[in-house]
Amino acid sequence: MRKIVGVMGKGNLATAFEIDQAYQLGRLIGENGWVLLTGGRNVGVMDAASRGAKSVGGLTIGILPGKDKTGVAKAVDIAIVTDLGNSRNNINVLSSDIIITCGIGTGTASEIALALKNNRKVILLAPDKLTTNFFTSLAPEQIFIVDNPQDGINLVKQFLENGDI
Amino acid sequence: MRKIVGVMGKGNLATAFEIDQAYQLGRLIGENGWVLLTGGRNVGVMDAASRGAKSVGGLTIGILPGKDKTGVAKAVDIAIVTDLGNSRNNINVLSSDIIITCGIGTGTASEIALALKNNRKVILLAPDKLTTNFFTSLAPEQIFIVDNPQDGINLVKQFLENGDI
Amino acid sequence: MRKIVGVMGKGNLATAFEIDQAYQLGRLIGENGWVLLTGGRNVGVMDAASRGAKSVGGLTIGILPGKDKTGVAKAVDIAIVTDLGNSRNNINVLSSDIIITCGIGTGTASEIALALKNNRKVILLAPDKLTTNFFTSLAPEQIFIVDNPQDGINLVKQFLENGDI
Amino acid sequence: MRKIVGVMGKGNLATAFEIDQAYQLGRLIGENGWVLLTGGRNVGVMDAASRGAKSVGGLTIGILPGKDKTGVAKAVDIAIVTDLGNSRNNINVLSSDIIITCGIGTGTASEIALALKNNRKVILLAPDKLTTNFFTSLAPEQIFIVDNPQDGINLVKQFLENGDI
Repeated sequence: MRKIVGVMGKGNLATAFEIDQAYQLGRLIGENGWVLLTGGRNVGVMDAASRGAKSVGGLTIGILPGKDKTGVAKAVDIAIVTDLGNSRNNINVLSSDIIITCGIGTGTASEIALALKNNRKVILLAPDKLTTNFFTSLAPEQIFIVDNPQDGINLVKQFLENGDI
Repeated sequence: MRKIVGVMGKGNLATAFEIDQAYQLGRLIGENGWVLLTGGRNVGVMDAASRGAKSVGGLTIGILPGKDKTGVAKAVDIAIVTDLGNSRNNINVLSSDIIITCGIGTGTASEIALALKNNRKVILLAPDKLTTNFFTSLAPEQIFIVDNPQDGINLVKQFLENGDI
Repeated sequence: MRKIVGVMGKGNLATAFEIDQAYQLGRLIGENGWVLLTGGRNVGVMDAASRGAKSVGGLTIGILPGKDKTGVAKAVDIAIVTDLGNSRNNINVLSSDIIITCGIGTGTASEIALALKNNRKVILLAPDKLTTNFFTSLAPEQIFIVDNPQDGINLVKQFLENGDI
Repeated sequence: MRKIVGVMGKGNLATAFEIDQAYQLGRLIGENGWVLLTGGRNVGVMDAASRGAKSVGGLTIGILPGKDKTGVAKAVDIAIVTDLGNSRNNINVLSSDIIITCGIGTGTASEIALALKNNRKVILLAPDKLTTNFFTSLAPEQIFIVDNPQDGINLVKQFLENGDI
């Protein structure tokens, strides 16, 4: 079975920095032969990570909230159509062997919280102090902080080598 | 249609203080003739709020995560069986006209985040500083802080009188 | 905990006969003090059963497919907002102690099949021959046929007296 | 975006004939370069179709009902973990560009009905008379009958060439 890395972050409100970081993450995930999973929409972090992974021939999954493929990112290979609205966020985290986040919003916060609730590890990429402190206080052993995409990927490799995920 | 107030908080890990606050909330919700909605399990805040509401003859709904009524709180009148696991958290917040939280954990954090994502107002009862700051930073106009159950209920009344919910 | 009877059938395409039968079912469910559960929309069988139950002061639950209360039947007391689209059909049947159907369409067929899959009993009210034969062939011990609303209600009473539901 | 063909049928109760047919379907789907989607469990039609697709190097998706990968078919490449129980049946059909069924049970019947409700085409492979008649009566323009796996695949090709799916 293929290993799946989920990348999560804001849609329309993502910053240029977050979009760049997401693209780098996607590219590195593709280069490592892992499958990229995102929320599948053609905006923000989801779109950028998918483009990054496709730029190196990676495989990309998008878990869509709507009832059809309207608004899917062009770089998504496999669209899973849920018609679950925000309940699909729980599928995003359950289906990911590990989650990396880029930036924070209400949707991303729900995904981090659901990931922790479901005993998943979450890597926060360049988070603000408040996000770090809040989620670390909830589940200190499941939250990991990295400064740049490469460090995030190195952490995923280490977890895989140790059989932690 | 009946107005529904959701009370959310920890299950097994709820503190004695939180359980007491949840009981008071449930009682006040029942006294005001609103319907109480919780996650429905027979532990922690869900159980206490339901008991509080029943103590004054209120109507209680429990949105259960499992595939049957196993583990439902005794004070739940109407059990909605979802078999959705933690995806049911999104139904908890969508079905509540307003949400009041007692304490914080990963499940409750997911509910607050999903409520904000879905444009619901959330009243945090006696939250710690970190929880207040984190969620206020995400959605300042949707987060309200109160010190005690009666103040929470007064805020709900005010929202209803103003047609805000 | 209150006993819940689910009434399911077509929405916009319901016939006048089915709407009349659904109204009678709702009225009888209300008179017996059971809670009525439907898909909650303001059309067809859902709407008619809810009106029937309210006409005698019964309590009515509507499990809505959308992300808010748009299109809810006026006679629904408690709206459960799921944003699950047709996945909410599984919640309809899991939350009902027993299901009675009025007429058949693709949505109702999915509910009967899901009810059988989840080991629920289903009473088909005045079904056509094909519907009877198809579902009886799938789960002969869970399908019951009645000719009129009163006979359906009598069957529910008998199941309750025998502790079958 | 990759085209996805869903193959659905019984789990533990599948017959040897159905398992053989499912294997052939999976193999042909893989040979055509389409993605195979199933319910993902290591039994019956889901397992056989996945093995067939993998035997020719096809890509296989499994949409699992549980909260982790327990019980996943070995031939599944990408496991989507839903924790939705039977509500995941709606995701199976929404995510498939077209559905082919092998045999009939309550779960498969729910998937056919949900597929029709969501305006999907469904190809019934060697169905019994009752299944054919029942679903044809519900949605005559969406139900197609074939006698063997190759004819089913030919129909999918034709739909794709005509832009029907």
